[in-house]
Amino acid sequence: MADEERAIRDMVATWMMASEAGDLSTVLSLMADDVIFMAPDREPFGKDAFRVTSEAMKNVSLRGTSNIREIEVLGDWAYIRNYIDVTLTPSGGNAVRRKGYTLSILRKQADGKWLLWRDANLVA
Amino acid sequence: MADEERAIRDMVATWMMASEAGDLSTVLSLMADDVIFMAPDREPFGKDAFRVTSEAMKNVSLRGTSNIREIEVLGDWAYIRNYIDVTLTPSGGNAVRRKGYTLSILRKQADGKWLLWRDANLVA
Repeated sequence: MADEERAIRDMVATWMMASEAGDLSTVLSLMADDVIFMAPDREPFGKDAFRVTSEAMKNVSLRGTSNIREIEVLGDWAYIRNYIDVTLTPSGGNAVRRKGYTLSILRKQADGKWLLWRDANLVA
Repeated sequence: MADEERAIRDMVATWMMASEAGDLSTVLSLMADDVIFMAPDREPFGKDAFRVTSEAMKNVSLRGTSNIREIEVLGDWAYIRNYIDVTLTPSGGNAVRRKGYTLSILRKQADGKWLLWRDANLVA
C-alpha cells in the first residue's frame, strides 16, 4: 500500500511538473482516455476538451504547488484530496492566482500505472 | 452489484426527500461521522458544520431533484456523479435556484448500509 501511495504521489508530482513545463503530451498520458473532469460553471468534459483548452493556453505560463491532503487506495482504485495553488501568467499579461481543493478518483491500469479517472476541481 | 446500485439510489432519494422535509436527523444518518464536504470558496467541512449550516437554514424550504449520472461500486466503496437542481425559498423571501454536479464517494458499513464519505459539490 505504501508503494501505491508513493506511485500516486509521483504521478501527481509528474503532472504538476509537466504542466509547468508546458509538456501537454505527458499530462495527457496521466489520464484515462475516458476521464471526466468536473469544474464549476461548465459541463463535465473529457480528454479532448482538456487538450483543446490546454493548447489554447500554451502562451500562459503556469507555476504551482500541490499539497495532497488525503490518499486512500482501494485495490485498483484510489481517491485523493489535493490542495492546488497555481499562478497563471499570460505572455505580456498579469499573473492570476488560483487555489483550492480537488477530489480525484484514480484507476490502476493492468501495467500498474495509475491514471486520473474522475476529477472534481473546486479551484477558484 | 445491481442490489448495491439500488441501495445507493435509495440512499440518494432518501437524502433528497429528507432534505425537502427538513428532516435533518435522517440526512445526518446518511453520512459517516468523519465525512468531508468540499464546496467552492470555503474550507472543507465535516458533519458538525453541516448540522450547524442546516439548522441555520431551517426556515428555508428546499425543493429539488437529483439525477444520478454515474454509479460505480468498488467492493465496499462506491462513487457517484450526480446532477442536482434545487430551489431554496426563505420564509417570506425570493426563491433561489442552484444546480450543478457533485462527485461523491460512499462507503458501505459492516451492516450493509451505504454512507456518504467524501463529497465535492460544484452546485453554483
